[in-house]
Amino acid sequence: MEVGFLGLGIMGKAMAINLLRNGFMVTVWNRTLSKCDELVEEGASVGETPAAVVKKCKYTVAMLSDPKAALSVVFDKDGVLDQICEGKGYIDMSTVDADTSSKISEAITKKGGRFLEAPVSGSKKPAEDGQLIILAAGEKAIYDEVIPAFDVLGKKSFFLGEVGNGARMKLVVNMVMGSMMNALSEGLTLADKSGLSQQTLLDVMDLGAIANPMFRLKGPAMIKGSYPPAFPLKHQQKDMRLALALGDENAVSMPIAAASNEAFKKARSLGLGDLDFSAVHEVFKCAGGSNEA
Amino acid sequence: MEVGFLGLGIMGKAMAINLLRNGFMVTVWNRTLSKCDELVEEGASVGETPAAVVKKCKYTVAMLSDPKAALSVVFDKDGVLDQICEGKGYIDMSTVDADTSSKISEAITKKGGRFLEAPVSGSKKPAEDGQLIILAAGEKAIYDEVIPAFDVLGKKSFFLGEVGNGARMKLVVNMVMGSMMNALSEGLTLADKSGLSQQTLLDVMDLGAIANPMFRLKGPAMIKGSYPPAFPLKHQQKDMRLALALGDENAVSMPIAAASNEAFKKARSLGLGDLDFSAVHEVFKCAGGSNEA
Amino acid sequence: MEVGFLGLGIMGKAMAINLLRNGFMVTVWNRTLSKCDELVEEGASVGETPAAVVKKCKYTVAMLSDPKAALSVVFDKDGVLDQICEGKGYIDMSTVDADTSSKISEAITKKGGRFLEAPVSGSKKPAEDGQLIILAAGEKAIYDEVIPAFDVLGKKSFFLGEVGNGARMKLVVNMVMGSMMNALSEGLTLADKSGLSQQTLLDVMDLGAIANPMFRLKGPAMIKGSYPPAFPLKHQQKDMRLALALGDENAVSMPIAAASNEAFKKARSLGLGDLDFSAVHEVFKCAGGSNEA
Amino acid sequence: MEVGFLGLGIMGKAMAINLLRNGFMVTVWNRTLSKCDELVEEGASVGETPAAVVKKCKYTVAMLSDPKAALSVVFDKDGVLDQICEGKGYIDMSTVDADTSSKISEAITKKGGRFLEAPVSGSKKPAEDGQLIILAAGEKAIYDEVIPAFDVLGKKSFFLGEVGNGARMKLVVNMVMGSMMNALSEGLTLADKSGLSQQTLLDVMDLGAIANPMFRLKGPAMIKGSYPPAFPLKHQQKDMRLALALGDENAVSMPIAAASNEAFKKARSLGLGDLDFSAVHEVFKCAGGSNEA
Repeated sequence: MEVGFLGLGIMGKAMAINLLRNGFMVTVWNRTLSKCDELVEEGASVGETPAAVVKKCKYTVAMLSDPKAALSVVFDKDGVLDQICEGKGYIDMSTVDADTSSKISEAITKKGGRFLEAPVSGSKKPAEDGQLIILAAGEKAIYDEVIPAFDVLGKKSFFLGEVGNGARMKLVVNMVMGSMMNALSEGLTLADKSGLSQQTLLDVMDLGAIANPMFRLKGPAMIKGSYPPAFPLKHQQKDMRLALALGDENAVSMPIAAASNEAFKKARSLGLGDLDFSAVHEVFKCAGGSNEA
Repeated sequence: MEVGFLGLGIMGKAMAINLLRNGFMVTVWNRTLSKCDELVEEGASVGETPAAVVKKCKYTVAMLSDPKAALSVVFDKDGVLDQICEGKGYIDMSTVDADTSSKISEAITKKGGRFLEAPVSGSKKPAEDGQLIILAAGEKAIYDEVIPAFDVLGKKSFFLGEVGNGARMKLVVNMVMGSMMNALSEGLTLADKSGLSQQTLLDVMDLGAIANPMFRLKGPAMIKGSYPPAFPLKHQQKDMRLALALGDENAVSMPIAAASNEAFKKARSLGLGDLDFSAVHEVFKCAGGSNEA
Repeated sequence: MEVGFLGLGIMGKAMAINLLRNGFMVTVWNRTLSKCDELVEEGASVGETPAAVVKKCKYTVAMLSDPKAALSVVFDKDGVLDQICEGKGYIDMSTVDADTSSKISEAITKKGGRFLEAPVSGSKKPAEDGQLIILAAGEKAIYDEVIPAFDVLGKKSFFLGEVGNGARMKLVVNMVMGSMMNALSEGLTLADKSGLSQQTLLDVMDLGAIANPMFRLKGPAMIKGSYPPAFPLKHQQKDMRLALALGDENAVSMPIAAASNEAFKKARSLGLGDLDFSAVHEVFKCAGGSNEA
Repeated sequence: MEVGFLGLGIMGKAMAINLLRNGFMVTVWNRTLSKCDELVEEGASVGETPAAVVKKCKYTVAMLSDPKAALSVVFDKDGVLDQICEGKGYIDMSTVDADTSSKISEAITKKGGRFLEAPVSGSKKPAEDGQLIILAAGEKAIYDEVIPAFDVLGKKSFFLGEVGNGARMKLVVNMVMGSMMNALSEGLTLADKSGLSQQTLLDVMDLGAIANPMFRLKGPAMIKGSYPPAFPLKHQQKDMRLALALGDENAVSMPIAAASNEAFKKARSLGLGDLDFSAVHEVFKCAGGSNEA
């Protein structure tokens, strides 16, 4: 099976490599073309532009960093729209808001192309291990056709109905995740300031009803103040913002997500936006302790 | 091994039964004595007062509903203090604040008694299954002696140092749990109002980094609006309050816990205090939708 | 002086009447044209379309309900852009976000027109009394020319520099106002549930450092549960949202505004969006009291 | 009229001086007795202990920093209880929680003494100017007798019924004030980061519905980062905490106050507890701005 692949950031690179290693022929493109070199070593071809990739491949997958990049790759000069046509499918796996997804869907289908949005849950490690969760929505037929690729990229895929639902589901999951990260950080901080061992807190939580892989994975690193970017904080904050905007549309009041979003914004203002989203811990723990009279 | 057991609420009853079924001789007491009948059928003896239980047993375990009850059982007429003396141990497994625990500890040790606080993490089901997590603090020697009982009641026990640390650790864990419950409720509500399947949201989350037993257990019931009390909401709110008070002492700012606490208070004001703490979901989902011009 | 006036909602109508009664010749337009009748009785002319008004008048003022309406009046068929040209000025007094204002500004100036944004602080009553506060930004020369009109509409006008700054200042003021309204509502509710007189609370506050006209005006009505719409809640919530978005752009963490926004959203979900923004009080006071065992 | 006066902190000193300058004979006491010197220069006598003051005076006023100090002055050795008896009145003007006030009231009345709680609204400046607002509760007869002193100390006094209501009213007012301070700080910060003049924001707000003395007084100093302690931040945070506890008792959900309380706690953790409560501004403004890739 031949697929195009647009976008070779942290996630996209890992995903494209997985496709290559599992027998797919992959033509890659990235804004900074030099990033394609490593993929070429793995056997990829390179397309000079998004349009060139679409021209060559029946299916093109995109994995871009934000709505702006997702729109740009489609609508700009030499973009996807230049070559998309009847018989060709475009699968956008970027995390974008439903509006962006709809805009892209309309443009693609107007040209006769086929569209599937398929944002993923999971960051660097699951991407590398082919263990992503894929939240697809749009044309059911193309979903069925690209299942072989999804089976390589993820451990499970869902088809969620109309375009926009993949984006929405992703935002809801990331919103819950963002609030949980803040809850963890508050817990670690309170333990520490109360004279308790943070590691014991992690051990206790890991045995009970709230045990979860994220606490297990991120907790020890947070204690050490280490935040290598698996899922950059600025992207987590963007997702919180988009989830809150979705709530706004539907008059859903979400005070915990709102408070968490403000903590992520505080982290951004402290210059932590490019670190892992667990770096929000610096917001909670930064204080030096009171010295009141 | 012979142990006394004070308090046969949801948790206490399950724990006392486990001790009986694992070969312990147990003398039980409960404020409403009729609640002892079921335990008698399992082979328990009954003590007329806390003092009578302590008089009879070398080790007495208590599992009471709140700080007030925990203090009352110790300090009231015919209470634990009447009979505690050198050689006798008192193990308070109630969830109370560190101050309450310290007060009890001082009174017991002043009489020559030995004290261990040992609050647990886990509610009805883990109590029944002997799968609690035990957070002990106080006298290390008595901790070592009662390990056989802890092995029956829980799957793991921790010794955390000075009296108060068990209480504090428990509060921190429950605070994180309370914030996670609110995050889950917001997620379910947002999914529903955005046209997504709540069950699919649970399925997606259960495959990823934030998968945890609580979401798996409580989520489906919350969708149905079913909240049989495993851990009553008013107790969860009490723990949030105590955790925030601990944060206050140590100047720890915890905006997510604070927002979660206000949601639990709202739930109490709606008359949901005696339901399971997952009933906070009613606060988030109750709205009927806007009908703006 | 002759001015056009687009938009005869609660605010616009009061403002247009003030201009008429102070000797201005006013040509009005409203989407529902029948709303113009009352103005005609006061001496106004009617324009069939925004374009017709602009064609007739050197200066055209707009007072529209939201960014969508503000854009529509300019960009739609028979809109302002059809007739704006060199020598003509367009003064948009609607409350919109800076992006919307910039879009309008660019379109107007591209056609050779002159642009001033001039959102106002103050609702129905100040509009009727000519006591608005005017937050102008854009072309300084046109600001100077329309000062006579501003003197009729408001008690004070500010020139704030580049286009967008008027919108931004308005949002900041309304954000603070929205948080204050929530703080008032919490105070009234706490007083009531604690057995204190809500009216005495208002009296005490009115004598001290936080005494302000809004508490004085809205407080007694809130106690009675009366919320006649001076500033509709859905518009206040929109402004909170836009202010938070402005904070998002600049990485400013604003937890109090965020919590207040969620309360306004809750009010919307309860169907209160068309009432006065003080109706957020129903969110705080609605609870019936706990009936815990 | 002769009165005793216990406690010569910022507030107490100003109040005692006012009494002296208005013809009252005042016997003062302070934990650090040297603080009495300045009052002696104004004509005061000094009592060696609270008991000595009460022995000498028919009415004794107390103005202490917190519940602990208020209790200590009454219950400790050589405290008020040693000498209070039939015919003597004790007027506690400290800001304490209702429980503390009730404890003191019971002890005083049990000895035959008469009790009035009378916390005040207003800080240093109003105390100096005799412009406090006095929130009295307890025995109505003693309230009527000490009106001449209240007329010197304040511009208005309220009698609010049973003991505890003065404390509760004070907390509610200070809670609203604390939330407003946070709202102001968010507004100033957002203005600044959005390229607007903070002083113009203050000017605009001062012309509209939310104009209030606190914004007028504190705003310009906050812009400069100047926070001379009129009302220390740690006391404001204590009042927020007590108000939230009052809400907890009555199942009142107050998310804005809760978020504000966390901001004040953050300020304490930054070592700002002894500065004016407006120093919470440092929490909001401290960020340096994001430097995201």
